[in-house]
Amino acid sequence: MTPFKLTEELLSEIGQLIENQQNSTLETMLEEVHYADIAEIINELNDGQATYLIKLLDSDKTSDVLTELDEDIREAILNNLSAKEIAGELEELDTDDAADIIGELPKEIVNEVISKIEDRDHAKDIVDLLRYDENSAGGLMAKELVKVRESWNVLTCVKEMRAQAENVTRVHSIYVVDDDDKLKGRLSLKDLLTTSTRSHISDVYIPKVDSVNVNEKPEEVAKIMSKYDLEAIPVVDEMGRLVGRITIDDIVDVIREEAERDYQMAAGISQDVEADDSIWDLTRARLPWLFLGLVGGVGAAAIMGGFEDMISKHAILFFFTPLIAAMAGNVGVQSSAIIVQGLANDDLKGGVGNRLIKEMLLATLNGLILAGVLLIFTWIYKGDFLTALAISISLVVVIIVAGLIGTFIPLFLDKRGIDPAIATGPFITTSNDIFGILIYFSIAKILLGI
Amino acid sequence: MTPFKLTEELLSEIGQLIENQQNSTLETMLEEVHYADIAEIINELNDGQATYLIKLLDSDKTSDVLTELDEDIREAILNNLSAKEIAGELEELDTDDAADIIGELPKEIVNEVISKIEDRDHAKDIVDLLRYDENSAGGLMAKELVKVRESWNVLTCVKEMRAQAENVTRVHSIYVVDDDDKLKGRLSLKDLLTTSTRSHISDVYIPKVDSVNVNEKPEEVAKIMSKYDLEAIPVVDEMGRLVGRITIDDIVDVIREEAERDYQMAAGISQDVEADDSIWDLTRARLPWLFLGLVGGVGAAAIMGGFEDMISKHAILFFFTPLIAAMAGNVGVQSSAIIVQGLANDDLKGGVGNRLIKEMLLATLNGLILAGVLLIFTWIYKGDFLTALAISISLVVVIIVAGLIGTFIPLFLDKRGIDPAIATGPFITTSNDIFGILIYFSIAKILLGI
Repeated sequence: MTPFKLTEELLSEIGQLIENQQNSTLETMLEEVHYADIAEIINELNDGQATYLIKLLDSDKTSDVLTELDEDIREAILNNLSAKEIAGELEELDTDDAADIIGELPKEIVNEVISKIEDRDHAKDIVDLLRYDENSAGGLMAKELVKVRESWNVLTCVKEMRAQAENVTRVHSIYVVDDDDKLKGRLSLKDLLTTSTRSHISDVYIPKVDSVNVNEKPEEVAKIMSKYDLEAIPVVDEMGRLVGRITIDDIVDVIREEAERDYQMAAGISQDVEADDSIWDLTRARLPWLFLGLVGGVGAAAIMGGFEDMISKHAILFFFTPLIAAMAGNVGVQSSAIIVQGLANDDLKGGVGNRLIKEMLLATLNGLILAGVLLIFTWIYKGDFLTALAISISLVVVIIVAGLIGTFIPLFLDKRGIDPAIATGPFITTSNDIFGILIYFSIAKILLGI
Repeated sequence: MTPFKLTEELLSEIGQLIENQQNSTLETMLEEVHYADIAEIINELNDGQATYLIKLLDSDKTSDVLTELDEDIREAILNNLSAKEIAGELEELDTDDAADIIGELPKEIVNEVISKIEDRDHAKDIVDLLRYDENSAGGLMAKELVKVRESWNVLTCVKEMRAQAENVTRVHSIYVVDDDDKLKGRLSLKDLLTTSTRSHISDVYIPKVDSVNVNEKPEEVAKIMSKYDLEAIPVVDEMGRLVGRITIDDIVDVIREEAERDYQMAAGISQDVEADDSIWDLTRARLPWLFLGLVGGVGAAAIMGGFEDMISKHAILFFFTPLIAAMAGNVGVQSSAIIVQGLANDDLKGGVGNRLIKEMLLATLNGLILAGVLLIFTWIYKGDFLTALAISISLVVVIIVAGLIGTFIPLFLDKRGIDPAIATGPFITTSNDIFGILIYFSIAKILLGI
C-alpha cells in the first residue's frame, strides 16, 4: 500500500479545479481516494470549497467523509446543505454515525431532516438512538446487527440473515434472541458454514454471550471488549432485550480519546484541544491551570515571607526553594500517575493503607538517596555542614509527604466517584509546592534556630 | 452480563482447593470462567499454586491464560513446566502469541520446546515469526489467515477456505494471491455468500486491499488501521508476498501501551512500571527523573546565589522564585504536550516558524493576563509598585520563553528522529526552571538596579 500523503501541491490543484468547476476531473481524481483521506483534504479547504466538494461527490462516499471531518468544518458544511441534502447523507450512514451527526445539528432543523429520510425504518432507528446519553453504551451503539430467533431453523436463519446483512457492514456475530427479543446467545458465521440447514437454531447456538447494559460507561465497555478480545458486543436494555451493538472501531476511538484526555489533564490542559485550534480556544484550555499555579506561587511567596527573619543568616535556604518545590511536584506527579493508571486499568489490589505504606517506603528510599547527594554537594560547595544537613533532612520529609499526597488524592477522588486523573499535573504540583515549602522552612527553622 | 469480580473470598477458596488437591471441584468451578479472568486469579496466586492450576486445566484454556498473565508470573510458571508441556501450550496458541512466549523463554530450551511441537506446520510458522523485530509489523502479525488463489473458482475456494478457517479464530477477510503468493486483493465473506459457485475468483475479488510492509512500525500500523477503520490488515514482505495478518485486538494493545508510555514519560516515570511492581523497580523508574530535578534545582540555587547582592533590598524577589519556576514549568509542559499530541496524531500542519509565532502570541496573551493579576495583587499587598512591575514583566517574558522552549524542543527532537514524548514532563520543567529563574533575576536587576 502506498499511503496517502496530503501535499500542498495536491491541495492547490484541488482548489484550482474547484474554482474552475472542473467537476468530472475532480470526480475521477477522487474516485479511488479513501473517504478518510478525502476528509483530510476537506479539512484544509475553505467552507465554500468544502461544501462544493461534498455536494459534487456521491453521497455514499460523502456521508462517510462527513463523519471523519473536524467538527467545525462539518458544522460549516451542514449549514450550507438543505434538510433534504443532509437527510440524503444520513440515509447512507450507519445509525450510530447518523445519530451523532443529528446531535450536532441546530435543534430547529432536526425534525425536518428526520422527516426527509426516505427509509422510515432507518429514521426510526436513528430517532431511537437520540434518546441515549452520549456518554453511555447506548450513545455508542448502532442499530445495525444480525439477529435470529431461537425458534427458527438454520435455513430460515440463513435467508433472514442475508437480508439483514445487506445493511450491516461487518457481521461479526449473529445474535440469537427469544420471541420477546431477549438476548439468548450467539452463532458464529463459521459455525453456520458447517451446520446442516435442517438443524434448529435452539440446538446449535452458543447460549453464552458477553453483553453490556445500555447505560454502561464507554470506558467500561472499552475495558470489557479489550480484556476479552471482543470485536463487537451486543447491548441490552434494562429488560435484557437486544437493542444495539458496539463494534471495536468505535472502542478504538474511545480508548484514544480517553488516553488523550488523561494526558492533557496531566499536562494542565483542561479541554479537548488540538495544536491547530484557535488561540482563544487554547487560552481557555490553558489559562485556568496556569491561574491555579499563580495562586500556588503567591501562597508559596506568602509562606516564605513568614520566614523572612531567617534570610539574613541563612539566605542559602531561600536559594533552594525552587529545588524543594520541583522535587515535591515531581514526586507527587510520579506517584499520582502510577495510581491513576492503576485505577484506569483496574489492577490496583490491596487497601489504601497498604498503598500509602508502600509509597512511604519508596519515597523514603528515593528521598535518602537524593538527600545524600545534595548533602555532600552542598557541604562541599558551601562548607556549612549544619545548613546542608537541614536542607537535606527537609528534602527527605518533603519527598515523603509529596509521595503520600500524590498517592492519597487520586485514591480519595476515585472513592468519591470523581475522575482521579484531575489529581495529576498542575493540581498536585501546586499543592505540593505549598506544602513542600512550608515543611522545608519549618524543619530548617527547628534545626537551625532563627 | 454479570462482570467477573475477583474477590478475596474467591482467591482464598481457590487457594484452599489447591492445597487440598480437590481437582474436580476446581475444574468444575473454573470451567465457565473466561481465560482472561482465570489469568487475573493466577496473577494473585503464589508460583506453586499458579503452576498447579496451569497443569490441572485443559491446555486449550491454559494456553490463552498464559498469554494474559503478568510477565513475571508467566516466567515463573514456564520455569516449572517441561519442554513438552510448554510445547503443548504453544500447540493451542495462534502463531503470534506462541512466538511471543518463545521470545521470553531461556535460549537453551527454545530448540527443545520447538522440537516437541507436534504440528510441524505450526512449528514452522512460529519459527518464521521469530526472525522479525518485536517492534515491527512482522513482530505483531500472526500466520493464521485465509488466502485463496486468483486462479481458483468459488467452489474450490469455499472448500479450501473451510479447511483453512479451522485454524483461524476470526476470518475477517479472505485474501487473494497470485501463484507467487503476491497479495492481489480480497474477498469478503459476505460477497462469497452471494456469489455463484461457478464464478472464478479472478472475476469476483476486489483488486484493492490495504496492506502494510513487514518492517512498518507498530504505531504506524495502528494509525492506518484506526484511520481506515480496519479490523485486520494483511502484511506483505519486500516482494509484496503475503506473509501474515494483524488483527485489531493486537492494535488495541499497541494503542494502550503507547498511550501509557507517553503518559508515564510526561509524569517522569522512565520505564513501563505498574503500581504493583516492586519498590526496587519503581525506584529505578522514578529516581533518574528526580535526579534530573535535583540537578536543575542545584542549578537554580547557583543562579540565585549569583544574585545574592539583591537579597538585602529586594528579598521579595526571592519569595517569588517558586512561582516563576512553577509557571515556567507549567507553560512548558502545556505547550510541549500539545505539540507531542499533534505529532502523534499526524495533525500538525505548517512549519516550525508558524508554530513558534502562534505559541508566542498565545503565551503573550496568557502571560499578560496572569502578570496583570499578579501586578495588582503584589502592588496592593506590598505597596511597592516598581518591584511589583518588575516581577510582573519578568513573568510575561518567562512565560513566553517557556512556551517557545516547550514548542521548539519536541519539534526539534521529532525532526531528529527522537521520540518527542521525552520532552514532556521533568525534562521540560527542569530546563524551564533554570531559564525562568535566570531570566527573572536578570530582568529584575535591569529594572530595579542593584
